[in-house]
Amino acid sequence: MAQKKMILDLDTGIDDAMAIAYAVASPEVDLIGIVGSYGNLYVEDGAINSLKILELLGVTDVPVYVGLSHSSEDDHFDRMPVSAQIHGENGIGEVELPAPSRPVESKNPDDAIDFLIDSVKKYGKDLILVPTGPLTNLDAAIQKDPSITKEIGNVTIMGGALTVPGNVSNVTEANIQQDAAAANRVFTSPLHLTMVGLDVTLRTLLTYKETQQWRDLGTKSGKAFADIVDYYIKAYEVTSPDLHGCALHDPFAVGVAINPDFVSCLDLNMYVTTDDKFYGRTVGDPARLSEPDTNVKVAVNANVDAYLNEFMNRLTGLFKEN
Amino acid sequence: MAQKKMILDLDTGIDDAMAIAYAVASPEVDLIGIVGSYGNLYVEDGAINSLKILELLGVTDVPVYVGLSHSSEDDHFDRMPVSAQIHGENGIGEVELPAPSRPVESKNPDDAIDFLIDSVKKYGKDLILVPTGPLTNLDAAIQKDPSITKEIGNVTIMGGALTVPGNVSNVTEANIQQDAAAANRVFTSPLHLTMVGLDVTLRTLLTYKETQQWRDLGTKSGKAFADIVDYYIKAYEVTSPDLHGCALHDPFAVGVAINPDFVSCLDLNMYVTTDDKFYGRTVGDPARLSEPDTNVKVAVNANVDAYLNEFMNRLTGLFKEN
Repeated sequence: MAQKKMILDLDTGIDDAMAIAYAVASPEVDLIGIVGSYGNLYVEDGAINSLKILELLGVTDVPVYVGLSHSSEDDHFDRMPVSAQIHGENGIGEVELPAPSRPVESKNPDDAIDFLIDSVKKYGKDLILVPTGPLTNLDAAIQKDPSITKEIGNVTIMGGALTVPGNVSNVTEANIQQDAAAANRVFTSPLHLTMVGLDVTLRTLLTYKETQQWRDLGTKSGKAFADIVDYYIKAYEVTSPDLHGCALHDPFAVGVAINPDFVSCLDLNMYVTTDDKFYGRTVGDPARLSEPDTNVKVAVNANVDAYLNEFMNRLTGLFKEN
Repeated sequence: MAQKKMILDLDTGIDDAMAIAYAVASPEVDLIGIVGSYGNLYVEDGAINSLKILELLGVTDVPVYVGLSHSSEDDHFDRMPVSAQIHGENGIGEVELPAPSRPVESKNPDDAIDFLIDSVKKYGKDLILVPTGPLTNLDAAIQKDPSITKEIGNVTIMGGALTVPGNVSNVTEANIQQDAAAANRVFTSPLHLTMVGLDVTLRTLLTYKETQQWRDLGTKSGKAFADIVDYYIKAYEVTSPDLHGCALHDPFAVGVAINPDFVSCLDLNMYVTTDDKFYGRTVGDPARLSEPDTNVKVAVNANVDAYLNEFMNRLTGLFKEN
């Protein structure tokens, strides 16, 4: 199998950090860039975290762009207090990592959007894009050049909730809630995408048992990731005591982007509700139920054991070397 | 294949009338009784409609019971104005059918509940129950004798919406909305059930083209059903202009109960939300996502052509003889 190119679009938080590690550890893909988003924290802080995590993993040549800093419907972004509760004030579980030795590629979001578009033009069907934050950057790229919706190889998002309640409201998942209007434009565009939402990410759970394996490696990255993820597991004990672990939201999207067999999917034409009461609901569009073509594959069930096994093999192998 | 026994639990409106016709026309099942529910209209009016429809179809030996008259959470039931708009004041599209020549089996809802329980005890795995209204009667039967949840062969409900918006609110389907507390008890009981909700019933659409075929038969039942269903199609032109036809909600549940291959299902543990803002939402239970056993099969996609073909073959064949 020829190696594909991958771009991550992240608001680097804790599960985003694991998503970076999964991408770096995967021989099937060449991580060619990270575009930063807002959400778990402010966009520039997230981009710095991406640089820190890459360096922790020995990666010093992947460009990090600062994307758009707020929703397409707003002129600014206020970080929610619960984000600091779940990811820590610094977004990576209050673990202190060295200041990155290199800067972001550009602080101008136009450059981030152009990087997305140019990469589609350059790699086309060989490009995999994995947005695991708000869909603001992808939406902006599509607005600027709608032709990319037909040219990109694979878009796998972490976001939304179809068959389970949301985590912000009964109907709304956090990434979609940040910019439901952008999400609606993306979902109703010609773009084919796979939605890895709470339907499946709440099934892939990590516990202290696994983080202890990383700590036991005795390496810098193993210890740092164990501490970072333990913060996340502890937060889940408060916010989601029923789950008995932390959800591997973002790294599962990367896993599915590389190996779709980790999930089973429902083919559906969807929209995102933008009216007040049900803001950010990702749901089937009744008016397009009978259309023969569908553009969204919604992951509705997961091969949990196979994924967790692969997740641990890849991350533990990577942490062993760094 | 041995013939199974079938009980319908209906609030006989228009699609319920088609469900009765589908059951009567199906050689795989022996319709042994109808339990009336409230919803599309008041329970006693619905039971009278069931008797009228049975007689129109030449059936004079299927007992009709009057079930519970209101939600388990309320002491009375008020018919919603929209129900008369969709089904007609009389529930069957303002078509005048002769007064039934026989009475209901009993007006005492206790007898209806006992009929359900006794039938489970008598036929067990050979019994198919198809509730296409509120789940109030089934819930009452389970409360009275919880052992039936393990003994009944097949429960296929028309109700709920998982992957599409509801038809009463963004999250709520009409049957579930009538008694979400009862629905929640049923969904979270050990009972195994198949949910045929709006996810698939909005895909199985009937148009004037098909009703004209019934009218062209020149028979009493063909003409009556054409007029009844035309009223329904006309109502859909107002309430759901996007669909271009009327949804075969209740008869699709009967079809799936007899032939599960008409749909593809998602296995899920579910609950029904009973808090005010999201009252009546049928959705996956995050706390039970990782349990290996699931008790609900949610129909999420449909083999529309195969079902519509079977539906027309069966109903047209039946109407030809009556």
